[in-house]
Amino acid sequence: MCAKISSLDRVIGVDVGGTKVAAGIVDGQGKIVTQTRASMNCRGSAQDGLASVLSAIEALFVQDAASRKKIHCIGICAPGPLDPRTGVIINPPNVPCWRDFPLADEVAKHHSSHVKVDNDANAGGLAEYLWGAGRGFRNVFFATIGTGIGTGIILDGKILHGRTGSAAEGGHVSIDLNGPLCNCGKKGCIEVLASGTAIARRAQEKLAESPQRGVRLLELAGGDVTSVRSEMVAKAAEAGDPFSLEVLDQTLEYLAVWLGNVVDLLEPEVIILGGGAGQMLRPYFHEIQKRMNRWCVNSRYQEIPIVPAHYGENAGIAGGAALCLSGSSL
Amino acid sequence: MCAKISSLDRVIGVDVGGTKVAAGIVDGQGKIVTQTRASMNCRGSAQDGLASVLSAIEALFVQDAASRKKIHCIGICAPGPLDPRTGVIINPPNVPCWRDFPLADEVAKHHSSHVKVDNDANAGGLAEYLWGAGRGFRNVFFATIGTGIGTGIILDGKILHGRTGSAAEGGHVSIDLNGPLCNCGKKGCIEVLASGTAIARRAQEKLAESPQRGVRLLELAGGDVTSVRSEMVAKAAEAGDPFSLEVLDQTLEYLAVWLGNVVDLLEPEVIILGGGAGQMLRPYFHEIQKRMNRWCVNSRYQEIPIVPAHYGENAGIAGGAALCLSGSSL
Repeated sequence: MCAKISSLDRVIGVDVGGTKVAAGIVDGQGKIVTQTRASMNCRGSAQDGLASVLSAIEALFVQDAASRKKIHCIGICAPGPLDPRTGVIINPPNVPCWRDFPLADEVAKHHSSHVKVDNDANAGGLAEYLWGAGRGFRNVFFATIGTGIGTGIILDGKILHGRTGSAAEGGHVSIDLNGPLCNCGKKGCIEVLASGTAIARRAQEKLAESPQRGVRLLELAGGDVTSVRSEMVAKAAEAGDPFSLEVLDQTLEYLAVWLGNVVDLLEPEVIILGGGAGQMLRPYFHEIQKRMNRWCVNSRYQEIPIVPAHYGENAGIAGGAALCLSGSSL
Repeated sequence: MCAKISSLDRVIGVDVGGTKVAAGIVDGQGKIVTQTRASMNCRGSAQDGLASVLSAIEALFVQDAASRKKIHCIGICAPGPLDPRTGVIINPPNVPCWRDFPLADEVAKHHSSHVKVDNDANAGGLAEYLWGAGRGFRNVFFATIGTGIGTGIILDGKILHGRTGSAAEGGHVSIDLNGPLCNCGKKGCIEVLASGTAIARRAQEKLAESPQRGVRLLELAGGDVTSVRSEMVAKAAEAGDPFSLEVLDQTLEYLAVWLGNVVDLLEPEVIILGGGAGQMLRPYFHEIQKRMNRWCVNSRYQEIPIVPAHYGENAGIAGGAALCLSGSSL
C-alpha cells in the first residue's frame, strides 16, 4: 500500500510490454513530466526481464536526478495474469521470462519505494478516473480497444479486482454464443468481434467473399487481402466506401450490444473508450451510444455518456502512476 | 439509513408483488419468526396499494403485539423500477397504482420506523450474503430464476446499485445478439432463453416442430402443447425422456455462457441460484459449473462455486429484512 503518497507527490509509472518498457515521472495532476523507453528483454531469464524494468527507471533518474530521493512509489502496468495484491506476475504468454515472479518485491529491493503492480486496463481505468475522462465520476467503465480489448472497472473510486484480482475481463464477454472462436477458447467474445484485429479479419473475410465490392479497400492494402488493417477500413469508410462502411457498421452494432450488457450489469456513470481502434472509432461514439440505448433494459441508462480516453500512447505510464495514488486521500 | 439497527434487533421484511403482500418479523440471524400474507390491491389508487402494505404489517403486530414497540426498521422488496436511495417507486408494470410513489416515506408516516426499499433480487442477494448461502463471502452473484431472471450483485458486502440504483439487471445480459426477442426489447437476453417461462416456450416450440419425439412430455401436459410448463420438462427429463433432456441441456448451456460472462466481468466468490426454476435446476448445478468453466477466460475461475439459495418462497421477506441490516455494524 502507498497510503502515505499524496496528490502533491510525484510518482513513477512503468508500462511493461512484450517488446518495450516505458517509464515516466508523473505529477499529482497526472501530468507526465519526464519519460523514457527501453527495450524489454523477455526471452532471457527472469532477472534479465527485471533488468529491463530497472534500466527504464534508472534512465528517468539520469534525466531528473533530483527525483531520485523524492519519489516514494513506483506503479507498474504489467501483462497478466498477475496478482495485484502481491505484485506477483503469474504466467503472461507474451513475457515468458516471468513465471510466478514477484515483480513488486524485486523492484522494491532496488528502490526504497512502495511498488504496486496491476494490469494495463485496470490501471488505465484508474488513471482516467483520477485525472482523465472519468474525473468527477465515482463509477467508470474503461475499455481499451486495440489488438485485443481490455477493460477496467472503477467502482466507488476503486479498481474492481474480484476474488483473486482477475475481474474485469470484459473483452471476453460473449455476445454471440454461436460466434467465431476467440483466442481465449470462448465463442463470440467482443474481442474476436470488434477489436482492431477483428475489424481487419472481418474485412478480409468479406473481401474474400466479394472482392469486386471491396475494390477501394483492396487498393489501400496494395491489392493484398491479407494486408488489410483496421485503419484502412476506417479510412475507406471515411471516404464513403460502402463496403468498408458495412464492416464498420457491424462493429458499432457489436460494441453497442456489449456495452448494453455492461450497463445492464454495472450501470456506470461514464463509459470511456481508448486504445488505437477506440481512438479510430471516435467519430462513431454518438452512433454507438444511440444503438447501445436500444441494447439496454432501462431508459435511465440513456444518460450514460460514452467518451474518448484522455490518455493515448502514455496510458500505461499514467496507469502505473495512478496505482500509487489509489488508497490515498485522493 | 438504519445505522442504529444491530444484528441483535428484530426487523420487519415486506415482499410486495402484483397480487400479494407477504410480511415477516425476522431476527438477527435471518430467521423468520412470524409471517403474514395479504392480497395486494394494485389496481386502485396509490393509497389503496399502500393500505395493502400497511395491513400486512399490522397483521404482524396483531400476531406479535410485543414487537410493535421494539421494531425500528422495515425493509420492503418492491417491484422496480424504483429508487433505492429515496424509496420512491417509479413505474412498475405489474403495480400500476404506484407512479413516482414515495413508498418509504408513506410507510414511515404510519410507523415510527426507518423504512428501506429495494428490488427483490438485490434484497434477496443481500439476505443470502448475510444469512444464507453467501455467508462468509464478501462478493456474491445472486440470481433468481423463475418467470423471469432477476439478479443481485453484492460487492464488498454491499448491494451494487450503480448510478441511479438500476444496476444488476443481469437477466437482460444478451448472450445471442441474433436470439429471440425479449420482453425488454433486446434480443437473446438470458431471461428469454433460460427462465422458467423460456424453458416452457422452447419446449413448446420444439414440440410443434417434432410432436412425435415429444410424446412423453406431451402426455404430462394432458396432450395440449400450450399447457407445457418448465416443471414438466424437468420431470420428464428426470425420467430419462431424451426430448426433454435436450431442452434442459440447452438451458444449461445458456446459463453456462451467461455465468461465464458474469464471472469474466465480476469474478465473484460464489454464485447463488434461487427461484422456482433455479430450484428445479439444482440437480444440474454441477453440470452448469463444468460448462461455465469453458465459458470463462481464466482457469482461476474454476474454483467459483455455484450453490442453491438458502431462502425459497420467503426470499422476499428475508430480503426486505436484510435491507435493514445493510450499512449496520454487521
